[in-house]
Amino acid sequence: MSKLSIDEQLEIIQSGTEQIVPLDDLRRKLERAERAGQPLRVKLGVDPTAPDLHLGHAVTLRKLRQFQDCGHLVVLIIGDFTARIGDPSGRNSTRPPLSEADIEANAQTYIDQAFKILDPDKCELRRNSEWLASLNFADILSVTSKFTVAQIIERDDFDKRLKEQKPISLHELLYPVAQAYDSVAIKSDVEIGGTDQLFNLLAGRKLMEKSDIEPQVCLTLPLLVGTDGVQKMSKSYGNYVGLTDEPNDMFGKLMSVPDDLMLSYFRLATAATLAEIASIEDGLNDGSAHPGQMKRKLARDITALYYGQAAAKDAEAAFDRVFKERAMPVDIPEEAIDWQSASNDEGKIYLPALMAKLKLANSAGEARRLVDGGGVKLDGVPLAARVYELEPEALQDVVLQVGKRKFVRLV
Amino acid sequence: MSKLSIDEQLEIIQSGTEQIVPLDDLRRKLERAERAGQPLRVKLGVDPTAPDLHLGHAVTLRKLRQFQDCGHLVVLIIGDFTARIGDPSGRNSTRPPLSEADIEANAQTYIDQAFKILDPDKCELRRNSEWLASLNFADILSVTSKFTVAQIIERDDFDKRLKEQKPISLHELLYPVAQAYDSVAIKSDVEIGGTDQLFNLLAGRKLMEKSDIEPQVCLTLPLLVGTDGVQKMSKSYGNYVGLTDEPNDMFGKLMSVPDDLMLSYFRLATAATLAEIASIEDGLNDGSAHPGQMKRKLARDITALYYGQAAAKDAEAAFDRVFKERAMPVDIPEEAIDWQSASNDEGKIYLPALMAKLKLANSAGEARRLVDGGGVKLDGVPLAARVYELEPEALQDVVLQVGKRKFVRLV
Repeated sequence: MSKLSIDEQLEIIQSGTEQIVPLDDLRRKLERAERAGQPLRVKLGVDPTAPDLHLGHAVTLRKLRQFQDCGHLVVLIIGDFTARIGDPSGRNSTRPPLSEADIEANAQTYIDQAFKILDPDKCELRRNSEWLASLNFADILSVTSKFTVAQIIERDDFDKRLKEQKPISLHELLYPVAQAYDSVAIKSDVEIGGTDQLFNLLAGRKLMEKSDIEPQVCLTLPLLVGTDGVQKMSKSYGNYVGLTDEPNDMFGKLMSVPDDLMLSYFRLATAATLAEIASIEDGLNDGSAHPGQMKRKLARDITALYYGQAAAKDAEAAFDRVFKERAMPVDIPEEAIDWQSASNDEGKIYLPALMAKLKLANSAGEARRLVDGGGVKLDGVPLAARVYELEPEALQDVVLQVGKRKFVRLV
Repeated sequence: MSKLSIDEQLEIIQSGTEQIVPLDDLRRKLERAERAGQPLRVKLGVDPTAPDLHLGHAVTLRKLRQFQDCGHLVVLIIGDFTARIGDPSGRNSTRPPLSEADIEANAQTYIDQAFKILDPDKCELRRNSEWLASLNFADILSVTSKFTVAQIIERDDFDKRLKEQKPISLHELLYPVAQAYDSVAIKSDVEIGGTDQLFNLLAGRKLMEKSDIEPQVCLTLPLLVGTDGVQKMSKSYGNYVGLTDEPNDMFGKLMSVPDDLMLSYFRLATAATLAEIASIEDGLNDGSAHPGQMKRKLARDITALYYGQAAAKDAEAAFDRVFKERAMPVDIPEEAIDWQSASNDEGKIYLPALMAKLKLANSAGEARRLVDGGGVKLDGVPLAARVYELEPEALQDVVLQVGKRKFVRLV
């Protein structure tokens, strides 16, 4: 078991959490684990979709890693059962049933990324079809009898839909119950999730209590705000730092995090101890630490977590070349252009189409907007708005820069 | 198939019903049955408790018998599945799980009484565990996805409890779904029940539609008011006429039905045709029929339904002796009393205890109340209130009468 004392473990586990319900139970469980030499079972349930994991997911995964570092076992549950069924009402066409092969592939994608953070040797991987698929009607009556209708529909989204008189399919009420049953099946000591998961985690605790199983402790983590400083980090908001982003991209994106979120990122996304974070906070407050230097440390620390110190140092150097010194990076890729065929009838180059072709923009339309916004430079000089057609000579052997970080030498 | 025309069948089936939803479907089904030479499947679901069936149950059973007489098949479903489970919440101690043997015995008790009315040769007997026990979680998600939460909780009793903030266990929402699934499983053409069952019958219809099965017609029957003229007939209100009541009891209880319920009883509890009932109604309205004579006919007709004309005639004669002529019946049973041991220290008989022992009252307390109310007579003379202790000589070879119909000669 852990070489850390109970107090040391508690300090690590508590750091950066939103709620631990109830904290006393966690201490008792840690003490018992220590006495019995039996690690705690720490549950995380994940949907078997194929996500690009980002720093938002990492908040949870890093907390799990801390449990592992304290000697405990992570039980990662792939929610394959409901994914295999899809939405039986057929209403939600965006949620078709997934095949077993899809689910396995998605699970593997998740695991590959998660194991950048988790220790595979202290991880038990389960699929909830193992126990949910074989439940029969009598079992389900027994499990559902342990909840009242009011308890389930008080969940935020149900409550909202009922008040708006939007239909809720009866089977939807069974999903939180199924998730709670997962905790009964694997006898979790702790379940962790985002603050928006507290209802579901507590349902698991409640069902365990009613099933005469030692109930799990529910641990929630704050939702990480995205690099835009507004929304929670999410792929769909485009405000995320992916765990598989290249080091230079990761470093660059982190340098764009608003100053007032820096401490939150230190708390949730780095390995900094509570003492280190307190010292950074003090420094920022009394002016002894420079915000720019601190953000640089943040970007370096997080990049180093995923790629090591050397890569983080290189990324910082690359960033400095591009952003700090306003010079261009040393290793700009070259693109050989067939100038003849790229020209129009008048012998001119339509730049937006070329940018789209070179994947410097998603479409010619986006490329035009980038030009109009001053985001396109030729050898460091921004193009004026609505300048789309250029002589080939104006482009040949020129560095085309799009946004802050995309560079191509046209040859 | 039936020798009756569709219109004749419809007239019989419609008589005395509360609602047929939808009537057009019933006609279409009857026509198809006729064409295909295939009887309709008419469902009744019953709880496997051990009931004393009474005229209230008979309203439904007689309607089923009419379907049989039109050539159709009754599918009687014993709800053994939920009975085997009991109330899994454990809240309802009055509903413990029943053993298979209990359920079979109860089912047999029900069937024995029901077959006083139903034709066993046109009855398919099923148990809903046949299909419900083997449903798995995926099946249940599929079935429940066909209902919205709002549809289920609009049921009267759920709605009421929600408004009163009384807890509803989540599993209770699954029972109407299970009952609806019974219709899918046996592919019923018609389901019948009391007016209070309309919600459940319609749920069956809806689930069949959503399962691409020809939906059942829902037929409801009015609830028979008990002999007290106030509550619906029920064993727990003590206002019932049991199907196994002795002919004299049956006749006597029916003579106590309030005048204004007579037509309802003719409609729901006798074999009288619509024309006969119309004629009785006219007679009562224009004064050409005497209410007392009509009630006598009602009592005779119903008693004859269960025991034949001869027994009904005897019961009427017995009634006349007791009630009309105010004389005592001819065949009073004798009870041999051990006067010595029945006496107390003072050599007196404590009558309430004796009455309880002879089952003339449920308890000595009830016996005292009967005495106080003037309901206990010795040789036709009512005892005064609070006269409980009597000399043995005052009781020996005396007719002890309790209420209107209980007589014992003490010897």
